Amino acid sequence: MATLPESPRILVLGAGALGLYYGGLLRHAGADVHWLARSGYDDLKDHGLEIRRAEEDAIHLAEIPVYPRPQDAPAADLVLVAAKATANDELRETLRVLDSGSNLFLTLQNGLGNIEALADVVGPERVLGMLCFVCVNRLAGNVVENFLPGSVALGRMQGPTGPDEAILARLFSAAGIELRQTENLNEALWRKLVWNVPFNGLAIAAGGIPTDAILARPELEELTRELMAEVITAASRRGVEIPLSFIDKQVDVTRRMGAYRPSSLIDFQEGRPVEVESIWGEPLRRAEKTGAKLPHWRMLYALLQALTDPEMP
Amino acid sequence: MATLPESPRILVLGAGALGLYYGGLLRHAGADVHWLARSGYDDLKDHGLEIRRAEEDAIHLAEIPVYPRPQDAPAADLVLVAAKATANDELRETLRVLDSGSNLFLTLQNGLGNIEALADVVGPERVLGMLCFVCVNRLAGNVVENFLPGSVALGRMQGPTGPDEAILARLFSAAGIELRQTENLNEALWRKLVWNVPFNGLAIAAGGIPTDAILARPELEELTRELMAEVITAASRRGVEIPLSFIDKQVDVTRRMGAYRPSSLIDFQEGRPVEVESIWGEPLRRAEKTGAKLPHWRMLYALLQALTDPEMP
Repeated sequence: MATLPESPRILVLGAGALGLYYGGLLRHAGADVHWLARSGYDDLKDHGLEIRRAEEDAIHLAEIPVYPRPQDAPAADLVLVAAKATANDELRETLRVLDSGSNLFLTLQNGLGNIEALADVVGPERVLGMLCFVCVNRLAGNVVENFLPGSVALGRMQGPTGPDEAILARLFSAAGIELRQTENLNEALWRKLVWNVPFNGLAIAAGGIPTDAILARPELEELTRELMAEVITAASRRGVEIPLSFIDKQVDVTRRMGAYRPSSLIDFQEGRPVEVESIWGEPLRRAEKTGAKLPHWRMLYALLQALTDPEMP
Repeated sequence: MATLPESPRILVLGAGALGLYYGGLLRHAGADVHWLARSGYDDLKDHGLEIRRAEEDAIHLAEIPVYPRPQDAPAADLVLVAAKATANDELRETLRVLDSGSNLFLTLQNGLGNIEALADVVGPERVLGMLCFVCVNRLAGNVVENFLPGSVALGRMQGPTGPDEAILARLFSAAGIELRQTENLNEALWRKLVWNVPFNGLAIAAGGIPTDAILARPELEELTRELMAEVITAASRRGVEIPLSFIDKQVDVTRRMGAYRPSSLIDFQEGRPVEVESIWGEPLRRAEKTGAKLPHWRMLYALLQALTDPEMP
């Protein structure tokens, strides 16, 4: 039996690039979408939401329902958790306010440990995860730009997909979002890390450069491939088999993306916290627990810890 | 038979920290020292040379003989090559002007490949090398500051030390510089790399931080030690045995140095070329030719190439 009604009320928690993009597409297609926003609240309240797209017309939602505090938001059937994973600790209190006891929580957060953190608060039965394979940047508090439509993978940490996933699949499909239901969310998480670990990391560690500048240097492309191979090794140690041919495919698709600035680089350059632990720290520790040796990844993690430490000179 | 007279005329080529420091100490002790300077010429001409020292009184040489072009300099018995190794290509022309056909050349340059580059121009018989284990920074065009007196190792690429080295040893000793004659200059070069590869590299790659900030972070200290172990492995592949206990000693001595900014970091922060090839590139390639796997060093080299590339955004 589905927990969600056919037309659920959706509350997007967090007004970063992903929350604005997916929430905006869903609302544009007629879904009942609301936002809980902190930093972008005024912009969104005053000017609505604008989504620029590479291959289609821009979308402008002149007025959207947006709230500054969780207690101001209406009860939602589905909470779309699109806040940065770096805020997970302060998120707990917000989640408690939004927890009706029967609603669902769907996290879009990158890396490992987020679904568990969410399940700690609301229980594992009502938590879903979604991996977004997409290029989207926030240009201003109420403007996002999409480069590649990409796709999303939806599922639970364990167990088959059910009627709730079917309802979400219909909603996303109506909004033009390519959604794949997966019975192995863990695999989707690791596949996304194969991209995020090298590109988000080297974009910062090599001096604040976009993906095309990384691939333009043979020694950095080689390092990218070494890091991808290490993530694939790590995934394998955690029971997720990803073929090594995935590396060529990821490099090729990235080459076609042009001068893309990974989200972690934008966070870094704009002085916001970077998701160092969920992308580089937690997955690395889980793999190293099995005895895996991942020297490039460990070195990148060490450099990123220093580079993103606000206490450093 | 010695090539050098008992009181040789010395021309210091390059007015960086080391050329000013050692040349200044020698002149202060009565040696006939001259400088060929480009960027610091006006400061040195107008204001002389100042050497600040941690444990002794400052030295101020009110007037020193300094020349802007090699053809202005008097013929010298010994040319002390203290220019950055990044300038080796343009150095060739200068060296040809300064080559009397019988004078000696002593290089203080860091890393591998410099003695060979010098020997290419003047022939191997008249080239000596000196490794400076010292902390000295240039504060202004005519001011250097010394933190630790340290010591120097003097020798030739091959062959025993002879009467020229004995004359230099007396001069340096008179100037209060601890000089060790070595029959294995190659070993001294590799020992210095054990320090330079991690500290000069991580100071840049971890965000522009001094040595104490590197050692304050456990993950960066671990990385420092991994890099040192890789340099020791590389040295061993090239026939130079350095015990692993050297790592603890180097970390300990560095901890006592406080907030030291390695010379490469200063070059980087002041927009000057960094000696990436002679410190990280050339020694790494020589070791990898033997089949050695040095993942941390290779990764650091890749990052430094990108970070120091003036074409990068």
